[in-house]
Amino acid sequence: MPELRKDLVTREWVIIAPERADRGGDFPWSAVEPPTAKDGASCPFDRGREGETPQEIAAYRPAGTGPNTPGWWVRVVPNKFPALTVEGELSVRSVNIYEAMTGIGAHEVIIETAEHQASLARLELKQVEEVVWMYRDRYLDLSRDRRFQYILVFRNHRRGAGSSMAHAHSQLIATPVVPVAVRHEVEGLRQYAEYHNRCCAYCDMVAAEVASGERVVAQNKEFIALEPFASRFPFETWVFPRRHTPHFAALTPEEVKDLAAILRETLLRIDVGLGDPPYNYFIHSVPLNMERELAANFHWHLELIPRLTVAAGFELGTVMYINIMPPERAAQRLRQVDLGSLLGAEGKK
Amino acid sequence: MPELRKDLVTREWVIIAPERADRGGDFPWSAVEPPTAKDGASCPFDRGREGETPQEIAAYRPAGTGPNTPGWWVRVVPNKFPALTVEGELSVRSVNIYEAMTGIGAHEVIIETAEHQASLARLELKQVEEVVWMYRDRYLDLSRDRRFQYILVFRNHRRGAGSSMAHAHSQLIATPVVPVAVRHEVEGLRQYAEYHNRCCAYCDMVAAEVASGERVVAQNKEFIALEPFASRFPFETWVFPRRHTPHFAALTPEEVKDLAAILRETLLRIDVGLGDPPYNYFIHSVPLNMERELAANFHWHLELIPRLTVAAGFELGTVMYINIMPPERAAQRLRQVDLGSLLGAEGKK
Repeated sequence: MPELRKDLVTREWVIIAPERADRGGDFPWSAVEPPTAKDGASCPFDRGREGETPQEIAAYRPAGTGPNTPGWWVRVVPNKFPALTVEGELSVRSVNIYEAMTGIGAHEVIIETAEHQASLARLELKQVEEVVWMYRDRYLDLSRDRRFQYILVFRNHRRGAGSSMAHAHSQLIATPVVPVAVRHEVEGLRQYAEYHNRCCAYCDMVAAEVASGERVVAQNKEFIALEPFASRFPFETWVFPRRHTPHFAALTPEEVKDLAAILRETLLRIDVGLGDPPYNYFIHSVPLNMERELAANFHWHLELIPRLTVAAGFELGTVMYINIMPPERAAQRLRQVDLGSLLGAEGKK
Repeated sequence: MPELRKDLVTREWVIIAPERADRGGDFPWSAVEPPTAKDGASCPFDRGREGETPQEIAAYRPAGTGPNTPGWWVRVVPNKFPALTVEGELSVRSVNIYEAMTGIGAHEVIIETAEHQASLARLELKQVEEVVWMYRDRYLDLSRDRRFQYILVFRNHRRGAGSSMAHAHSQLIATPVVPVAVRHEVEGLRQYAEYHNRCCAYCDMVAAEVASGERVVAQNKEFIALEPFASRFPFETWVFPRRHTPHFAALTPEEVKDLAAILRETLLRIDVGLGDPPYNYFIHSVPLNMERELAANFHWHLELIPRLTVAAGFELGTVMYINIMPPERAAQRLRQVDLGSLLGAEGKK
């Protein structure tokens, strides 16, 4: 029989219905994945093509090399087709009975490697650490702009996850409002803390999951990767720092290392175990200008969503997800993936 | 410059960023659409294959013909792979620190025609009316089950919209909880009514849109189809009854006729204008057992979402949509579609 499960924080229900998996085949993603967009011959993210992107915002590159020249190992440029733009005044206006706001924000692309064919999961651990450092650097820099209320670091892998560029990259969008998903999470964490008279729901979740182990995908000293009890999607995986920290950018050097390691291991388990499917991940951190007491409840984390199924009318109409893969089974399957030598000596616990 | 727009009821923001359309091509849906699932040779929804579905729940069929025999023009059967099941007790249990509920509900398939090749948009108006009558019949029947809090009527067209069967059909799922999307809408309508000391936001929206006309797609005596000011998706279209009614099933015979006509016209405009893309639609009606005063604010409607783009990490992480098609432009484009003789004499205003 299907089961409804409630998210601990948002208190939204999901439907876990493994019987629906019998509807046909396993996951259809490989059947619907079209060829990747740009091939190497014309990719502006490649080494030597630095002049084809907008002007560089930041890069890790050898001392003495100039911006927009080769030699870099992580490079950040403005998105050529930005969802929000950095230039201009933030202003709200009425339009008939409605309300609109100027589209002020930032939209940056973090190019994770100069190699066109590389995938984040298969980069050396050291390089993944560099990517995480750049997430932090860009986050900190943008967080100083008082027009912004929120910064989302995210990644789209493959066209089935909305990516239009095959070259490995992450993105970052700063918004002038707190997005609704984050607002609901903040509110849920506040209510949980108030109701239970302790902080926080995610600390309780991490403790419970470590104790039971059945939904754990990977662990190291500073982080845990798990399938949430109320998983909305097959193989949805959340990565939590064990230390209760509202701000993503408060990462310590040890946490940068361990985040890179657990992220790489999780991505490898999904890559090898599920055949390199499209996926998205994003980081939920506390909103930028939130009052201290409310902000203190937040526990930043990363959410990773493989794109193995297509949301249909029921999901769009209810925002209540039907998930055909119980998270206990998903976690077991990911734990059992044999990574052989892929993890590398440096990636091992 | 991009613009943020706020939904009148949920007060959630969307980003309207037409510049991002230049990223490449028009809409990629035709490129990503795989062949439809079942072909006619083995489709259990076809005339003469009634024995291959679960036992019929209801049908419009000639007097004297028995259930599960040919002759029907609209037929309802249980979904073979239900997301929720009708048999059993509703019960909640604790699982560690979490909460779960038995997956009680109903999941029905409304087969809209016995013709395998037919599409809803191109059925005769009379047949679309019959489909709407069946929506109403099934809604009313299921609404008597006190275990259910909500009933969603919805439709998935093509695999890109999550459909696994090519044969024209709608679905209906009854849930034991009020889905979060509906809860937020109820709450938004209540707050609007309270703040403005009048009912309701959607009545105000319909009046404003009729007056301006710029986002209107189609109109008839009882209904209006429009692109919402804060459209989340390109060509997102909402259909409202002009009469303020909380309950979908309170449709009068005149409203059934006009709903069928406006739905068919809208679907034809999307079919012809956009090249028969995948789409979903669903009906938002007031929750079943809601207290009278709160329920009175609700204004039922249908939301139609063509699936022309893929939600990516930003959308999943924020639930804030980036829409590359301003609704004013979308409405104009749909209004200008030349339907020639497709609408038929009976479909004309």
